Amino acid sequence: MFNIKKLDSSDEAIIKEKINKKTKPIGSLGKLEHLALKLALITGKEKIKLRNPTILIFAGDHGIAKENISIAPSEVTKQMVLNFLNGGAAINCFCDENEIAIEVIDTGILSPLDNEPHLTSQRLGPGTKNFINTKAMSMETVVRGLKFGANNSYKHADSGCNVIGFGEMGIGNTSSAAAIMKALTNSDLDECVGRGSGVDEPTFKKKQALIKQALEFHSPNLTNPKNILSAVGGFEIVQMVGAMLAATEKQMIVLVDGFIASAAALVATKMYPEAKDYMVFCHRSQELGHRKMLRIMGVDPLLSLDMRLGEGTGAAIAYPLLKAAACFYNEMASFESAGIKEI
Amino acid sequence: MFNIKKLDSSDEAIIKEKINKKTKPIGSLGKLEHLALKLALITGKEKIKLRNPTILIFAGDHGIAKENISIAPSEVTKQMVLNFLNGGAAINCFCDENEIAIEVIDTGILSPLDNEPHLTSQRLGPGTKNFINTKAMSMETVVRGLKFGANNSYKHADSGCNVIGFGEMGIGNTSSAAAIMKALTNSDLDECVGRGSGVDEPTFKKKQALIKQALEFHSPNLTNPKNILSAVGGFEIVQMVGAMLAATEKQMIVLVDGFIASAAALVATKMYPEAKDYMVFCHRSQELGHRKMLRIMGVDPLLSLDMRLGEGTGAAIAYPLLKAAACFYNEMASFESAGIKEI
Repeated sequence: MFNIKKLDSSDEAIIKEKINKKTKPIGSLGKLEHLALKLALITGKEKIKLRNPTILIFAGDHGIAKENISIAPSEVTKQMVLNFLNGGAAINCFCDENEIAIEVIDTGILSPLDNEPHLTSQRLGPGTKNFINTKAMSMETVVRGLKFGANNSYKHADSGCNVIGFGEMGIGNTSSAAAIMKALTNSDLDECVGRGSGVDEPTFKKKQALIKQALEFHSPNLTNPKNILSAVGGFEIVQMVGAMLAATEKQMIVLVDGFIASAAALVATKMYPEAKDYMVFCHRSQELGHRKMLRIMGVDPLLSLDMRLGEGTGAAIAYPLLKAAACFYNEMASFESAGIKEI
Repeated sequence: MFNIKKLDSSDEAIIKEKINKKTKPIGSLGKLEHLALKLALITGKEKIKLRNPTILIFAGDHGIAKENISIAPSEVTKQMVLNFLNGGAAINCFCDENEIAIEVIDTGILSPLDNEPHLTSQRLGPGTKNFINTKAMSMETVVRGLKFGANNSYKHADSGCNVIGFGEMGIGNTSSAAAIMKALTNSDLDECVGRGSGVDEPTFKKKQALIKQALEFHSPNLTNPKNILSAVGGFEIVQMVGAMLAATEKQMIVLVDGFIASAAALVATKMYPEAKDYMVFCHRSQELGHRKMLRIMGVDPLLSLDMRLGEGTGAAIAYPLLKAAACFYNEMASFESAGIKEI
């Protein structure tokens, strides 16, 4: 379905040498040097180019939310979508501040929003089915969702964007992400399930028990990433997977936000391992499973600010670090140009 | 010498309520919420104001550098000062990118630079004395240095700046910072001394042994912060202490960079504990002693990117997080204004 090329690393030595000749001790810019290497491999060794940064916010509702295992009811998904469109949410502030464009996508919230010209409608239904004892969505819907998401990235690539971030909104979606994590990794369930936006102890126990029950129910079908998406996925997660894979196909820089976006990245990299080369993991969420999920993927996020909001907020606030990596790579003097003896 | 007021926390409840009513789960912006609280306490509960952000780079040479315990000779301090003035260093890139002004201050590099109109000359001598077996500087010099640094901050406060960051350059200054840390805390020496810009194992062992010897030599005099500065300090560290204290006196937001700047902050807070309320610790350096130093001060830095460069680079790249905290505090919708039921 996707034609993803392994990132060409033939310029790695040249790029590293350029970084090492900058007027600083070797390695002294730490993770920014690794980031600059990745960005230069993706966008070109001569100069790192970051063009039209854009964050896509995929919103969708979840049947499992009926079980009351979140701090808020499903209606809040729609209210937050309106908040995004009206510019009032955290992600709006961070994107405004960092000059990042936003596209908000309805992948299937409970009921549609009419008369919202700035909302992209890619609805797969009025929320997923409750995956406790039925498939969240059909395989047909998974495939439609992957294509929907892919088209978002193709469109932004065509408009000249080469840095694309992924955020989400969906009451109940930490349950779906935790179930995906459990199904795709060898983790214990209690390493995957966290408190989401902050549920209390009894609700947390109930959430754990329901996800355990759901995974037992679906266990014969959890055989590959698409089947897992069909069984326990979310509309926003499916579309993120498609959008991430299309973005890597277009050799864009993919900014991965928190727990839910990382679950989508986990699915995407299980389908196409080469996709990981294009991904920048932005922030380690406070959500319990995220640390282990990142460790399993072998990635080290840029930030760790104890946030647990989603929306793409981690990606938006990490973006200035990409600009920092680009500007030192592009602009900083070399020992030779500064007339300093190499140290 | 300084008139430092404890940060007035009487608006804390009002500020926290304002943060909690934003359209997000309570606490979900993690460290950015703590940062917003601090910034609002300092600059006003109605609106966080960040004005004319400026980074001061204090450069000075160190007698102990004669012992060859750094990767570069003292001459590199001067060369890097020229690099700062010519705009070619990492700190220049990061400040340009984030619209932060820079002032470069010669606190006493080996030999003066003539005809550099953009360099502020506050020389205390041609580098400190080698503190292995003599005082780094006299007490008179300490007092002059504190006043010099203080005047930098007073000047920027008068120009309307309220966010001031502290960086440094000085071959040998991790030795001075480690000695200060050892003298002011109960840490073991091997928790204080690190590899600086990246010395090899034999040089590292020599550095440890020399600092141990120096601290034994000076031990009768290591009785208070000023005596410690006189015994094992550096000109740039002394001036940073004065500048930090003056900045807190003026109720500015103080951005503390890495290991050396944190050593200055440690001295400053030993002299005036209230000063800590105005400080934002920006980045945990890869330098060995920094983690423990921050823990002793009871502070949690914003970033941890394995950098070990100094110059104020950690402060410069953390600055966008202050802007993020300010913009969510100032601009984000409340549940009431967005018409969302409080969650």
